[in-house]
This record gives sequence, C-alpha cells and structure tokens, in this order.
Amino acid sequence: MKFTLLQTDPRSAARCGVLNTAHGAIPTPVFMPVGTRASVKSVEPHELKENNVHIILANTYHLYLKPGNDIILKAGGVHKFMNWDGPLLTDSGGYQVYSLSELRKISEEGVIFKSHLDGSMQQFTPENVVDTQRIIGSDIMMPLDECPPSMAEKEYIRKSGELTIRWAARAKKAFSSTSPLYGHDQYLFGITQGGIHNDLREVSIKALVDMDFDGYSIGGMAVGEPAPEMYRILELSHTLLPEQKPRYLMGVGTPENILNAIERGVDMFDCVIPTREGRNGRVYTRHGKMNLRSAKYATDFSPIDEGFDNDVCRNYSRAYIRHLLNVGEILGLKICTLQNISFFMWLTATARTHIQQGSFLEWKDDFLKRFNDNDKA
Amino acid sequence: MKFTLLQTDPRSAARCGVLNTAHGAIPTPVFMPVGTRASVKSVEPHELKENNVHIILANTYHLYLKPGNDIILKAGGVHKFMNWDGPLLTDSGGYQVYSLSELRKISEEGVIFKSHLDGSMQQFTPENVVDTQRIIGSDIMMPLDECPPSMAEKEYIRKSGELTIRWAARAKKAFSSTSPLYGHDQYLFGITQGGIHNDLREVSIKALVDMDFDGYSIGGMAVGEPAPEMYRILELSHTLLPEQKPRYLMGVGTPENILNAIERGVDMFDCVIPTREGRNGRVYTRHGKMNLRSAKYATDFSPIDEGFDNDVCRNYSRAYIRHLLNVGEILGLKICTLQNISFFMWLTATARTHIQQGSFLEWKDDFLKRFNDNDKA
Ligand SMILES: [Zn+2]
Ligand SMILES: [Zn+2]
Repeated sequence: MKFTLLQTDPRSAARCGVLNTAHGAIPTPVFMPVGTRASVKSVEPHELKENNVHIILANTYHLYLKPGNDIILKAGGVHKFMNWDGPLLTDSGGYQVYSLSELRKISEEGVIFKSHLDGSMQQFTPENVVDTQRIIGSDIMMPLDECPPSMAEKEYIRKSGELTIRWAARAKKAFSSTSPLYGHDQYLFGITQGGIHNDLREVSIKALVDMDFDGYSIGGMAVGEPAPEMYRILELSHTLLPEQKPRYLMGVGTPENILNAIERGVDMFDCVIPTREGRNGRVYTRHGKMNLRSAKYATDFSPIDEGFDNDVCRNYSRAYIRHLLNVGEILGLKICTLQNISFFMWLTATARTHIQQGSFLEWKDDFLKRFNDNDKA
Repeated sequence: MKFTLLQTDPRSAARCGVLNTAHGAIPTPVFMPVGTRASVKSVEPHELKENNVHIILANTYHLYLKPGNDIILKAGGVHKFMNWDGPLLTDSGGYQVYSLSELRKISEEGVIFKSHLDGSMQQFTPENVVDTQRIIGSDIMMPLDECPPSMAEKEYIRKSGELTIRWAARAKKAFSSTSPLYGHDQYLFGITQGGIHNDLREVSIKALVDMDFDGYSIGGMAVGEPAPEMYRILELSHTLLPEQKPRYLMGVGTPENILNAIERGVDMFDCVIPTREGRNGRVYTRHGKMNLRSAKYATDFSPIDEGFDNDVCRNYSRAYIRHLLNVGEILGLKICTLQNISFFMWLTATARTHIQQGSFLEWKDDFLKRFNDNDKA
C-alpha cells in the first residue's frame, strides 16, 4: 500500500498524507461514511462524490449475511454491485458479531454466532473473513478480531488481545496465500486492541507491527470509556506505530473526538453519526448542531449553514427541511444525511488544510469553541 | 393562458401542444408526478428535471393543513419553499376532503371538514381555496368541486354537479378579483363533473365552457367505474370542450388508461402510481411491470430496462435494487420511484412523438400488447 506522509504538524502529532488505492487516491485525514449493507443510507453513490466523499466503509458481517457471498461474487464485487467506483474499506465483522448477535461462542478457531436476521448458525474464522473480503473486493480489509466489552476485566482483555494477535497472524497468512479476485490490489490492516491498558496496548501494537501490515486500526475505542482515556491510548499508539503507515481509529466519532484524534496522529475515521443523526433530523454545521425537527425553524428560511459550500445549503431552507421532517417525508432525512456527510467531509478536509498551513491547533480550538457553544444553546 | 395546439392525429382525437406558463413551457401530452406535501416522495427537485419532468402537482388540502398558509406565504410560495422552479399545478383540495376527512358537511357555502391530522374543524369555500392557491403560487389552480362517490345515485350526482357549477362561478369571480402574489401569472381551470352520465356531463361541461376557464379538468373519473365508461365520457368531453384549451384528466392513471385517454383528446395527467408503486418495489418498464422484491432477481445483474435512457438503468442492476428492497434500505424505494417517474415521462413524451409522426395508434397498440403481456407473466 502506498501511503505518502506529506506533512506533520510541528506542534502536535497531526499529519496529512495521501493513501493510494486502485480506486483512487485518498487525502488524509479522512472521514469514511458508513454504507453498512452496500448503501450509505438514502444516498446515491454519485451524490457521495458530489459531496467530496473519498472512501466509504461497508460491513463484512452484514454483507456476508445479505446478499451473501454468492451474489456478491456473481456481481463481481461490491464496487460493481453498488456502482461505487471509489475506494472501499470493509471491517472484519468481528465488532458486529459481538454487538448484534445474541448467541456467540469464541474459540481458538474463530467465532460461531447466530445470525440476527434468520437465526442460522454461522462461523467466522480469520481465514474465511479474508476470503469474504476477497469476494467483496474491498480496497482495504480488516482481520477478524475480538472486541471485548468496555467493562471487561483486565485479565479478559489480556487473553482476548492475545487471541486477536494469533488471529491476525492467521489472517495475514490467509491474505498472503490468496489473491484479489477482480484484478485490483487489496490491502490488509492490523487491528490493535488492549482496551485502556497501556501495557496491553503495547503488547498488541508491537506484535502487529512485527507482522508488517499495510496499515493499523485502533480498535476497542469509543466503547464507553471516558474521552481522556482514549486520547491517552492514541498518544501511546502514536509513539509505537510506524510513522509511514496509515492509522485508522475505528468507529469514531464526534467532531471533537475526531479533531483530538487527528491531533494525536490518526489518519482515518468512520462513524454512523452523520447518517444516523441525519435520519433523526439532527444536522451538523460549522456553528454547532441543530435539531431541524424543532418548531423554532418553522419560518426560518435561511439555509442550514449560510455560505457552506454544498448542494443542501444552496438548495433548501431550514423551514422546508423542518416541514419535510414534520410531515414524515423521506426527502427530509435524505437532505439531513447529505448535510451531515458533507459536514464531516468538510471537517477532515479543513483539518488537513490547517495541518498543511501550520495552523491546525488554533483552528481546532476556535472551531470546537464555536461548535460546542452553539450545541449547548 | 397560452396553449398552442401543434398537431392533431388524423385518425383519433390525440393531440400534441405546448402549454406556456411563467415557469416554463410544457409539451403535451404530459404526465405530472405528484408532490402532495411539496415533495415528490424521496426525490429532489433537480432529480425531477434530470428525469424530464416538466410540471408537478401538489395538494392544496395537505399544504393548507401543513405547513399552512402562513408559512407558505412567508416562504414566498411553494416554488421557492421547495426549490422547484418549473411549473406547478395544485388541485383544489375537494377530492382530499372527501377521501381523507372522516367528518365533512357540504353546504351551499362550502365544505366544513375535520382535519385528518389534528382533528380540528376547517372550512373550504370556493373563495378561500382560490386564496390558498394564490398563497401557494401554483401556475395552474383548480376550483373547489364536489367529487361524489362512484356509487352515488344519479340524482345525487345531478345536484352535486349543479353545486360544483355554482362553486366554479364563485371561484372564477374570486380568481378575477384577486391577483398573483409573487409576480407570475396564475391560471384557473374548470373541473367538469357528472359521473358516467352523458346528460349530466353535458350540462357540466357547457356551463363551465360558458365561464371561459383557462383549461378544463375532467373530474370524477377513475373512481371505480369500468374503463369503457370512462372512455365514453372522454369521447363526449372531447366533442364538447373547446379545442384550443388544455384538458386534464385528474388522477389517471395506468399506462393503458393514459394512452386511451390521449387517443380521446386528453392533454394532461397526474397519478400517484409511479411514486406509490415505486415505494413498494414495483417498477415500470417498456416491456411491462416488475416486482423487484422478488427473489428471482437476486442474481439478475441486468438493468431494470436494458437500453432505457435514464440514470437508474445506467447505474443499477435488478439484483442490487432487489438487495436494497430486501434489507429495507431507503435507497431501494428511491431508485424505484425514479425509474417509475422517468418511465411515465417517457410514456407521454413518446406518445407525443408518435402523434407528431402520425403513428400514434400503431405505436399504442404495439406498446400495450408488449406491456400487458409481460405483466401477466
Ligand atoms: Zn442531488
Ligand atoms: Zn441522482
């Protein structure tokens, strides 16, 4: 994987770079909208491009269950299936097994779980999860990991972390002994675990770095721990991860979490916030969040964020969107989703610009002050 | 209103023309997608244009209740409110009062009804319905009418038709004594009634033609009567309506109904079929209807209608859309809605081309044979 680090902030660990994939170059830091089931909810692929999306994420767990590997293979992979020709990252399905399946049994071999859709018993192993991602054809793949509950005892996290390391080695081997199915290169990241324990994180990171993955995911974060604990783990990770490889903080997060993680050397993010909150009428602007369901916007004919350079703010007023949400029109949640996606793309792109200009920290503080003030309002 | 009749089929009453409005010229025959509450469900206005939509319809009844006249007036009308700068037609709300409100009382003055949203009592009169449409700013307005139930006795339909005539006269007077609010011309059609009774239709049409409306709607059709009865009324209407005024068959309908009505001299149509059926995964193609929820499309990677010139058929496969519908992704119903809208636009546009070329009847028979054969399959 060709990751080019272009610039590092002299006053923090913030960095910007370019991640090259067969489906295009990704400027980092970057936010990846979530398209769980081969669809970023309510949005067409060409609309993602129009809103500056560089790379999207899909879920191995969901795609494996529906439409299933057979259909995806016949489609020629998920890029073709969903008509998205940009870069695609897939998670390993590990996290979904733990969060969505009621019944699961972890062993050395892998994890047996009950499908949340039809109750059938399924098995994920480090090897078959690589196979599924070969079939999906994602540009960036994740190995099967165990993501322990945030409240787990340290001893459990230690054992789980060791298992994840052994699974990572098997995933790497499976990856090396198989080839892409559709003629474009795929890459495999390692997922570091260890909860909020510095010593366990260190063991995990060192073992994975020794295996030389194409990039490193920081897993098991944003699962309920206080933000300062997460930031401490990011700082530790920054000192241990190779500078020249991309770093992906899985499942994060709020604008504040994202900027603080960028400050600590993270390059890639994904989160359901923009799409999920959009479906609830909660929109993100440069000046804070707004709940457009509120009656206070009934006669507010200004755009969501005056002067924000996207189609939503050029085309629709708060009052119109509020009306759509108020009467239950699908278009309302689609417009809110688009606004949020374009906001999160703006956020990481603007962070990047300020890293390049050497003004990242000042901009971050300014932005968060304004953003959080209005959120309280 | 400037309606230019361009050509008439020598072998039928089919005709093509251009209807000029302040928001653009409308080639007829034309199909108008329904945007009940200032939104064609799930579709953005610019997507309507991309799919060759010339004019949309909105519902006075729904807009009057929500967002209400105050908000629409402050917005500067529905065009601005929803960001649609093409022609807009509004119905009078009469039909919705009869179909949606449980409680209603018709008198000479107008109709008192209970809002289906909040149970409040409301009144529509010929005058205030014109006022509301002035506030909406629709290019083409409808007068308040009574649309009697399809099973009504002839005597009821006679009385109801006479009331509708008196209301039409009051609407015309209200229209003449008020002005557009937003600087663009508005037009008022008359709505003919009389059920399936030739004599009552004749009374209705003659009275309305005497009042010299900008165009004529044929109301009270497609409410349960057999198609041949509707066609007979259309043939009668054709002989009685002025040739140089546009004719609008309200709430119709299926491709077969539309083409048979075009053959009988109708210029304009609206129907919820494309949007409603799209939301259920039922799509229209040049070769018949398809239910894309069906498992038989699970590995069918061809477009909905191979070679059909629209974005949906260029971008998505049956298998992908079936997957979206199967897992409940909103994007699935949006794609189906777009397909159906573009199909209905194609249908009336192609009818127009064949009228111009003198081949309308042959094309209609060919098309319907192919279309209906596949529907049975
Ligand atoms: Zn758009
Ligand atoms: Zn589009």
